[in-house]
Amino acid sequence: MSNPVEEFNAYRSKMNDKLLSNNNKVVKRIFNLDTNAFAAGALDVKTKELLGLVASTVLRCDDCVKYHLESSYNSGVSKEEVMETLSIATLIGGTIVIPHLRKAYEYWEILENNEG
Amino acid sequence: MSNPVEEFNAYRSKMNDKLLSNNNKVVKRIFNLDTNAFAAGALDVKTKELLGLVASTVLRCDDCVKYHLESSYNSGVSKEEVMETLSIATLIGGTIVIPHLRKAYEYWEILENNEG
Amino acid sequence: MSNPVEEFNAYRSKMNDKLLSNNNKVVKRIFNLDTNAFAAGALDVKTKELLGLVASTVLRCDDCVKYHLESSYNSGVSKEEVMETLSIATLIGGTIVIPHLRKAYEYWEILENNEG
Amino acid sequence: MSNPVEEFNAYRSKMNDKLLSNNNKVVKRIFNLDTNAFAAGALDVKTKELLGLVASTVLRCDDCVKYHLESSYNSGVSKEEVMETLSIATLIGGTIVIPHLRKAYEYWEILENNEG
Amino acid sequence: MSNPVEEFNAYRSKMNDKLLSNNNKVVKRIFNLDTNAFAAGALDVKTKELLGLVASTVLRCDDCVKYHLESSYNSGVSKEEVMETLSIATLIGGTIVIPHLRKAYEYWEILENNEG
Amino acid sequence: MSNPVEEFNAYRSKMNDKLLSNNNKVVKRIFNLDTNAFAAGALDVKTKELLGLVASTVLRCDDCVKYHLESSYNSGVSKEEVMETLSIATLIGGTIVIPHLRKAYEYWEILENNEG
Repeated sequence: MSNPVEEFNAYRSKMNDKLLSNNNKVVKRIFNLDTNAFAAGALDVKTKELLGLVASTVLRCDDCVKYHLESSYNSGVSKEEVMETLSIATLIGGTIVIPHLRKAYEYWEILENNEG
Repeated sequence: MSNPVEEFNAYRSKMNDKLLSNNNKVVKRIFNLDTNAFAAGALDVKTKELLGLVASTVLRCDDCVKYHLESSYNSGVSKEEVMETLSIATLIGGTIVIPHLRKAYEYWEILENNEG
Repeated sequence: MSNPVEEFNAYRSKMNDKLLSNNNKVVKRIFNLDTNAFAAGALDVKTKELLGLVASTVLRCDDCVKYHLESSYNSGVSKEEVMETLSIATLIGGTIVIPHLRKAYEYWEILENNEG
Repeated sequence: MSNPVEEFNAYRSKMNDKLLSNNNKVVKRIFNLDTNAFAAGALDVKTKELLGLVASTVLRCDDCVKYHLESSYNSGVSKEEVMETLSIATLIGGTIVIPHLRKAYEYWEILENNEG
Repeated sequence: MSNPVEEFNAYRSKMNDKLLSNNNKVVKRIFNLDTNAFAAGALDVKTKELLGLVASTVLRCDDCVKYHLESSYNSGVSKEEVMETLSIATLIGGTIVIPHLRKAYEYWEILENNEG
Repeated sequence: MSNPVEEFNAYRSKMNDKLLSNNNKVVKRIFNLDTNAFAAGALDVKTKELLGLVASTVLRCDDCVKYHLESSYNSGVSKEEVMETLSIATLIGGTIVIPHLRKAYEYWEILENNEG
C-alpha cells in the first residue's frame, strides 16, 4: 500500500529517468551538480541538508522541501532542528511561507510515522 | 457535506494547531503578529484585508489569497472591490498572476454561494 | 473521455469567460494584450512562444508553462527545441525549477500522445 | 538644486518618454493601463495607492515603492497609514523586506521635508 | 575614458576571476554550464540570447539583463527584436518590471552609441 | 576614514533607530523576532547564520547577505564554509544569483581585510 513519501519518490524517479534519458547535456549536468553540492566538504551533510531545506522553504518550492525533509531525516536531523530551520525560513520569507510550513510539518510527521 | 471553504479551513486549523502546540517560539510569535497586523488602526479592517489580498496575489500564494478572500468577504468587501484589488495585482504582478486570478474568482463565487 | 490537456483547457476557458464577462476593464485589457504580444512581429510566433515558455518556467508558473507548451506544440516547435528552452530556464532559475521541469516534460509527452 | 525625489522623477520621465516614443504597442498599452488601474472606482484613489504600495513592497521593487509613496503622499495618506501598510508588507513578505522598509521610510521623510 | 559597458564588464571579469580561482567545484561548473547552455544547438545563438534576456528581465536581475543585452547586440539582434522581447517580459512579469525596462533601454542605447 | 562595512552598518543603524522610534508595534516585534530566531537553540549560532546567509542569497537580497556575512564572520565561519553555502545558493537559485555572489565575495574580502 502506497503512502505520500513513496508516491512522491516514485513520480520523482520516473520523471528524472525520463529527463536524464533525454539527450540534453545541460539538464544532465545540473542533476549531477546537485549530488556534488550536498556531499560532505567543509560543511557536513546534515548542515548542507538544512541549507537546502531553508532555501527551498523561502523559495516556496513544496517538492524541494519534501526532498530535503526526507534527506534531512535520513541524515539524522531532529524535529527540533527542522523546526528551527523552518522558523528561520518563515521569519525571513514572511507569512506567505506559512502554507508551506503546514505542508512541511505534515510531511515530517509522515516520515516519522513511516519509520514504525 | 463538505465544501472547498470548509475543507480549506479544516486543514488550516488542524495544521496550525499542530504548529502552535510545538514549542517553537518564533513560529508562535509570527502567528500572533498576523492577528495584530490586521486589526483596526489608522487603517480600517476592510482596507487591511484588501492590502493582505493584493500582497498575497502578487506573491502568488493561493492559500493566502483564499484566507484573505474569506476575511474580506466577512468584513463586507463587495465583489467589485475585490475585482479592482485583483486587477491591480494582475497589472503589477503580470500575466503569471492570471492562473491565481482564476482560482480567486472561483473561490469568491463559492463564498457567495455558501451564504445562501 | 477526458485527458489532462482537455481538462486544463476546459477549466481555463470557463474561468476566463467568467472573468471577462465581469465588468473590470483592466483585466479585460490585460487579456487582450496577451493575444497582441504573442502575434508575429519582428520576432516570429515560434520564437515568441519560446520566450513565453522560458519566462513562465523561471517564474515557476505551472499553468503558464502548460499554456505555452501547447501553443509551442501547435506552432511546430520540436521536442529538442523545448528541451533547450527548458534547460536554459533550469540553469537561470536554478534547481528549484526542476519540479516544474518534470511536470513540463510530462505535459509535453501528453501533447505528443494526444496527436496519435 | 536637485533632491532625491526630483532626480528620481526626472530619470523616470526621461526614460518613459523614450520608451513611449518607441513603436512598441504592448509597452504603450501597459503604461496606459497603469493610469487606468489606479483611478477612482469602487475603491478610492487613496486605497488604491496603498494597494500599489504594499504590492510594490512585498515584491521588493524600490522604484515602484518610491512612485507609490509619492502618489500616496499627494493623495493625502498619513505617515501612520503608510507605516501600517509597510508593516503588513514586512509581515507578509518577511525580513528580506526590511532593507526596502528602510529606504521607504527615508524617502517618505524626504517627501515630508520637501514640503516645507 | 571609461563607459558603463566597460565598467560593468571590468567588475564582472575581476570578480569572476576571483570566484573561479577559488577552489569551489560547484561554482566553477555552474559558470561552465552557462557557456554550454547558450551555444548553438537545436536553437540558434540569437534565439538563446533572447531567451536569456526575457528570463533575466522577468526575474528582475539588472546585471543579467545587461549581460544578455550585450551578447544579444553582438549576435546581431535588432532594437525592434529586443523591444518585443522586453515587452513580453513586461506583460508576463507585470509593471514591477518597468524600472528594469528603463535601465535595459538605457543600456541598449549605450551599446548602440559605443559602436560609433 | 570610512569603509563599505562601516558605511553599511551606519546607514542600517540610523534607519533602524528611526523605524523603531516610530510607534508601529508590528515592525518593532519583527525586529525583535530577528534577534530571537538567530540565538543558539537546537542549532548553534554558526549554523543559523549560514541558514540566514543561504536564504538571503537565494532571495537575492544584497543587504541581507551583507548582514549575514558579517555575523557569520564574527561567529567564526571560515571562507570555505561561506563558499560552500554560497555555492548551494547558486545551484538552488540559479545563475541569476551570480551577480549577488560577486558582491558577496567582494564583501567577504573586505571583512577579512578590515581585520588587519
